[in-house]
Amino acid sequence: MFRKTNETKVMRDPVHGYIHVDYGIIWKCINTAWFQRLRRIRQLGGAHMVYHAADHTRFTHSLGVYEIVRRMVNEVPDLRDALDEKEKITVMLAGLLHDLGHGPYSHTFEKIIRGSHEEYTCRIIEEGTEITELLEAECPGLAKEVADVIRHTSKNPLLPQLVSGQLDADRMDYLLRDAYFTGTKYGEFDLERILRTLRVSDSKVVVKESGIYAVENYIMARYHMYWQVYYHPVCRSYESMLNSLFLRLQDLYRAGNMPVVPAGFRALAEARVLTLEEYFLLDEYTCGYGFAVLKDAEDPVVRDLASRVQDRRLFAYEENNADAVRRVQEALEGAGYDPRYYFAMDEVGQRPYVPYSNDGSAPIWIRVHGGEIKEISEASTIVSSLVNGPVLRDDRIFYPAEIKSLL
Amino acid sequence: MFRKTNETKVMRDPVHGYIHVDYGIIWKCINTAWFQRLRRIRQLGGAHMVYHAADHTRFTHSLGVYEIVRRMVNEVPDLRDALDEKEKITVMLAGLLHDLGHGPYSHTFEKIIRGSHEEYTCRIIEEGTEITELLEAECPGLAKEVADVIRHTSKNPLLPQLVSGQLDADRMDYLLRDAYFTGTKYGEFDLERILRTLRVSDSKVVVKESGIYAVENYIMARYHMYWQVYYHPVCRSYESMLNSLFLRLQDLYRAGNMPVVPAGFRALAEARVLTLEEYFLLDEYTCGYGFAVLKDAEDPVVRDLASRVQDRRLFAYEENNADAVRRVQEALEGAGYDPRYYFAMDEVGQRPYVPYSNDGSAPIWIRVHGGEIKEISEASTIVSSLVNGPVLRDDRIFYPAEIKSLL
Amino acid sequence: MFRKTNETKVMRDPVHGYIHVDYGIIWKCINTAWFQRLRRIRQLGGAHMVYHAADHTRFTHSLGVYEIVRRMVNEVPDLRDALDEKEKITVMLAGLLHDLGHGPYSHTFEKIIRGSHEEYTCRIIEEGTEITELLEAECPGLAKEVADVIRHTSKNPLLPQLVSGQLDADRMDYLLRDAYFTGTKYGEFDLERILRTLRVSDSKVVVKESGIYAVENYIMARYHMYWQVYYHPVCRSYESMLNSLFLRLQDLYRAGNMPVVPAGFRALAEARVLTLEEYFLLDEYTCGYGFAVLKDAEDPVVRDLASRVQDRRLFAYEENNADAVRRVQEALEGAGYDPRYYFAMDEVGQRPYVPYSNDGSAPIWIRVHGGEIKEISEASTIVSSLVNGPVLRDDRIFYPAEIKSLL
Amino acid sequence: MFRKTNETKVMRDPVHGYIHVDYGIIWKCINTAWFQRLRRIRQLGGAHMVYHAADHTRFTHSLGVYEIVRRMVNEVPDLRDALDEKEKITVMLAGLLHDLGHGPYSHTFEKIIRGSHEEYTCRIIEEGTEITELLEAECPGLAKEVADVIRHTSKNPLLPQLVSGQLDADRMDYLLRDAYFTGTKYGEFDLERILRTLRVSDSKVVVKESGIYAVENYIMARYHMYWQVYYHPVCRSYESMLNSLFLRLQDLYRAGNMPVVPAGFRALAEARVLTLEEYFLLDEYTCGYGFAVLKDAEDPVVRDLASRVQDRRLFAYEENNADAVRRVQEALEGAGYDPRYYFAMDEVGQRPYVPYSNDGSAPIWIRVHGGEIKEISEASTIVSSLVNGPVLRDDRIFYPAEIKSLL
Repeated sequence: MFRKTNETKVMRDPVHGYIHVDYGIIWKCINTAWFQRLRRIRQLGGAHMVYHAADHTRFTHSLGVYEIVRRMVNEVPDLRDALDEKEKITVMLAGLLHDLGHGPYSHTFEKIIRGSHEEYTCRIIEEGTEITELLEAECPGLAKEVADVIRHTSKNPLLPQLVSGQLDADRMDYLLRDAYFTGTKYGEFDLERILRTLRVSDSKVVVKESGIYAVENYIMARYHMYWQVYYHPVCRSYESMLNSLFLRLQDLYRAGNMPVVPAGFRALAEARVLTLEEYFLLDEYTCGYGFAVLKDAEDPVVRDLASRVQDRRLFAYEENNADAVRRVQEALEGAGYDPRYYFAMDEVGQRPYVPYSNDGSAPIWIRVHGGEIKEISEASTIVSSLVNGPVLRDDRIFYPAEIKSLL
Repeated sequence: MFRKTNETKVMRDPVHGYIHVDYGIIWKCINTAWFQRLRRIRQLGGAHMVYHAADHTRFTHSLGVYEIVRRMVNEVPDLRDALDEKEKITVMLAGLLHDLGHGPYSHTFEKIIRGSHEEYTCRIIEEGTEITELLEAECPGLAKEVADVIRHTSKNPLLPQLVSGQLDADRMDYLLRDAYFTGTKYGEFDLERILRTLRVSDSKVVVKESGIYAVENYIMARYHMYWQVYYHPVCRSYESMLNSLFLRLQDLYRAGNMPVVPAGFRALAEARVLTLEEYFLLDEYTCGYGFAVLKDAEDPVVRDLASRVQDRRLFAYEENNADAVRRVQEALEGAGYDPRYYFAMDEVGQRPYVPYSNDGSAPIWIRVHGGEIKEISEASTIVSSLVNGPVLRDDRIFYPAEIKSLL
Repeated sequence: MFRKTNETKVMRDPVHGYIHVDYGIIWKCINTAWFQRLRRIRQLGGAHMVYHAADHTRFTHSLGVYEIVRRMVNEVPDLRDALDEKEKITVMLAGLLHDLGHGPYSHTFEKIIRGSHEEYTCRIIEEGTEITELLEAECPGLAKEVADVIRHTSKNPLLPQLVSGQLDADRMDYLLRDAYFTGTKYGEFDLERILRTLRVSDSKVVVKESGIYAVENYIMARYHMYWQVYYHPVCRSYESMLNSLFLRLQDLYRAGNMPVVPAGFRALAEARVLTLEEYFLLDEYTCGYGFAVLKDAEDPVVRDLASRVQDRRLFAYEENNADAVRRVQEALEGAGYDPRYYFAMDEVGQRPYVPYSNDGSAPIWIRVHGGEIKEISEASTIVSSLVNGPVLRDDRIFYPAEIKSLL
Repeated sequence: MFRKTNETKVMRDPVHGYIHVDYGIIWKCINTAWFQRLRRIRQLGGAHMVYHAADHTRFTHSLGVYEIVRRMVNEVPDLRDALDEKEKITVMLAGLLHDLGHGPYSHTFEKIIRGSHEEYTCRIIEEGTEITELLEAECPGLAKEVADVIRHTSKNPLLPQLVSGQLDADRMDYLLRDAYFTGTKYGEFDLERILRTLRVSDSKVVVKESGIYAVENYIMARYHMYWQVYYHPVCRSYESMLNSLFLRLQDLYRAGNMPVVPAGFRALAEARVLTLEEYFLLDEYTCGYGFAVLKDAEDPVVRDLASRVQDRRLFAYEENNADAVRRVQEALEGAGYDPRYYFAMDEVGQRPYVPYSNDGSAPIWIRVHGGEIKEISEASTIVSSLVNGPVLRDDRIFYPAEIKSLL
């Protein structure tokens, strides 16, 4: 039913060696304008402000997730047997397309727009774009089935586990990829070993006991990447400036003083659900150009924040406590900074692993010697220690470096 | 005289491990808006259209060149002794800043604007920007001395050899970096070995005979990177579309029909030497946004080319010969494509190494056992073979894939 | 006082790139017959029976430890300042020579001979060998000072911390090296980061808070290497066969029935403290040849065990519990195997990190923001969890695979 | 017909990630005493005297060759289709077993014994060892067919090309493996790319034109490994001492003065064809022990040479020319050294690639665009240059370092 490409098409990838494409529908989706748009969205929000080489995009990540799913359904004997051809293609497509709905600057952006990136992803897949047409032409109903994987509503419960469980192709690719492009070693783990020890039991994707060390390493890798990259204070400083700038634009819009901005930008300021046409235009090129334009805006706050963002003049930061907050707020007031835009606080805290996370993603299951299936914190002394130990927190406040002398 | 930073500042870099900064003036230059602008210029023109992960920027490359120069003047005993502190800082700054004048899309862009990137680099360094001010404040006359290294007019002939000879920090960084981010292995060579075998003789940077294999590898790496990355036909196809789009804009400008474009773009269409203010704005964000805007332009050629560029609908290509040219031109005419914008031909040819290249860069010198200095093709049988062997050529024509069925 | 080599001598090393030698005394020690003997002692006892490429030797490891110490005392500013030239050379020599006293098959061998490898190391350094002479010729008293570092009795308490603390050059080299040669990724950690964050406070080698993630990774690396390599059941099976063979030889010796064995071997069977002349001869070549000879011994137990060892016919293994022990012992009796030689049990258990270990090695100290020095389990939530969590155990019994059908 | 293992068995390998075994007969051959013997034969003769970590064995290399052959016949579509199951197993076995007949110290040893290692390999496969029995039990006639691949006498001419052509699994593994274990980068090339571009045309294994860069790199890698590793003068110095020692033993044997040596050793001195029982015992453990014993021999030349070999007191070397030879020979005479054992000269010369080598191995074929098959030097300008350029030579003489002061 599903057409194969003439010969396997391959794309060089620094993380996986090659991305292999065997099916025409995969190849066609890659060549759509919507998928190519992901070349204009970086994988990481502000981390390239700390790790200068981390300019890799959602495009490369999406290919990487697809490739891991492809290997899972081809190389893991249990999955090869448990899924039929249509399910395999459905889940490969879900891996490929799962981030289609991402906007610029990753999760920062999600705080600003209405709607999660998953919702936009499903709209792009189902609401009549070129991608919808390609999927439906290949097999009627396919668009919905791909979106169902992303929504965790597939008939076959194995499919969502491959792309959005706690040990899924998405996380495995981004850890390896972010480690590669930041140049840190924290995200490295033994993908080959994990793939080799995956099994299927009771409609669950499980790991054989002999893969437990590799999974422990994966959990530690994830934990360290959070602290060293995703939650790095410089990264959060940059994101808090982005946030302030958009907040100011929204306030100006509501006040009827909106400055001239690139088209896609305007929709953002209006803080409403976007049409897909608007959404298509919202990429990091538009934003980057918008910042350049806003450096000449009339409003001094917009002008200042746009310049900080573009020229990387970062907010300073320190530990969040009552005394620091008071000192900083006094200094801001003394220096005439509006704290609505020039003061931010955030709180991040994390356990290395939480068995039943509230995002609905499946826990990591281990099949121990003898055949019993255990949640990993019951099978690994290391993970058990980590789950029951204290939580690390890092709460910070952010403010213009210029007031440091006043503190 | 030159102030040191409090402690060595380091930035993680996937290629070199860390970039180390010891001098305040280096750190300050990195933090200028002009240097940060290089985050918005990719290292490679169109190669990310072939190698999807090759989104690395001139910013990372510039830091890498600086780091190699820093290692040269600190770790190569002959250079450590031959240069005084000011010369060391001058050449480190030249390594850091040598690409400041690059515009978007690498060398494609240089064909469109007036003036080479080296000229713009020297203007940015000398003509009163924040960078000029920082350099002059650190040491009067320093701006000119840094620019002199880039212009090959330094009093000390060693300095230009470190940043723009045939075996210089610039090429060594870009080969390693482009190999890393494309995921190819062709650009890898043994940097450590080359650094270990560098010596100074008669005001020349030379390589000890025991480093000759590493240099042979470097020459082969360079050769293979040219063919596999820089001259890849898909890369050249993308660049020829970019070129056509700008050509059309210039034609429209001359005809008085210029579409509305982002500010920086306009100056390009006018095909004149830019002011530094205009130049600052010309980055890949502006261009990327410009392509999005031009997809709605009135002129159908602009609209079509902008869409091909943005959505990666590449020109087809084949070998350049009289018969193919005739067939393609007939088909273009039949299908109503203006060959001025829809037909391109280019010719690339390359030897792995040319001792005395016409860009004035120093040849590679070998100090053989006994002390004599030889140009490498006289010291290496391999290089001698390559220099005297045939030249590989790859001449292509490019045209819209839509006419393939008419050929 | 201490003579430098003419120019830095370098040796290629896969783990560290190069080993650098600047001092004549280091170079001379490397070229002694005693140090060259380490080429004939593998780094790992039986792990090459699991990981077929793990044939690396104590020779390479000793060079690696030396190189890490050399980098510590040259590149860590606090150590560069805290130690004088003689102390630096002393501790580099201690790193280089610390494993001189190792015999074949690593720690298995230590169970068989009288005396620990540290004791033999100090004897070789101090009791009149070529090494003693070289050290004393370079600087009278130096031999004792090098041995003092190994005995933890140095006047300057920093020195032993560099070569035998919980975060020392010895462990850092062997984790990286064993990971490299086994081909596992478990032992990898970020050596560069740890070196960059080392400081000296109150005569302690401490890690700056920003290095805490790298140390957490190091602790996990060590933990995983123990389970995946050093405690691998196949490795323990091989070592238990070696142990049985030597036990049988000692029993035969006591009974006056000693078979003909290579010279060095005989001393082993006698179970006495060896002269250094005897010790010099005891390497893995002698043992390997000995096993070949013993395959023709008159005693059937010796013959059989030697053949199992040489041809890798491993003991089977299973979990140690009362029922299994009973079943196996019955089967051994039924099949006529002497359980003294054909049955082994061992118990291994391990926490990832124990702050105050009973081998006297220093705990890992962290200097937190503010300057306070904390033992790492008080500074890291991860390590705190691990220290307070359960202990993983793996208790096994080993027996000839031939009786499996009788169980 | 051929039994599969229960599940794929894997062995960790640093070069290939994992070695995969699917067939029972492969697994059984690995577990024979003859194959395990390869753990006691190093891959490289004397190179571990230069590159201290290069202790890897023929055992690991043989597994690696097998793994590359396994990938070729499973992953290269043309080969998967061209060969039947029996041919695939035959050639995998040939890859696995092709080095069975190697003795200690690689090719040095072949100069000393009668018979090439290929002859011994075929004898071990065909003359009634455990391996012969296993092969014949699996499929009568299989032993001869495996040996035929090694002898280049297979009915299907594809089979020998996979294990002993100029671009075969043997060379591909040893280049990668020797690069890994020496820590040099010279031997690295892009195995994945080569495998991806292999095709079958006219009973020839050919490379698609798009793989030509990867093959050029492979040729350069091979060339550089020869000069940097296999022909390194220190390596040749060590091998010339080994050679002298065995020469002296043979002379003593002929004179009836043979010292007491380990059993296997004796056969060597007799310079006759060995029985397989004798050959089995001849490994590097026997030799290593033999050197230790010979340090106490009565004959002073034997004693001295054995000590030089064991303690790595290398012969000095210099360029071979008439003047040097005369000076060295005079000095040897003056100092009382017998030049038969204390003077060696060797001449090595090499082109990077010779299309039709005299060992009968197939040249490298390229299938160019259009389908024509060309020998690579007709398809690659680089290789053409190298084939027609000059030959690099390195002719040396070797003698005891002690006479240097007399020169």
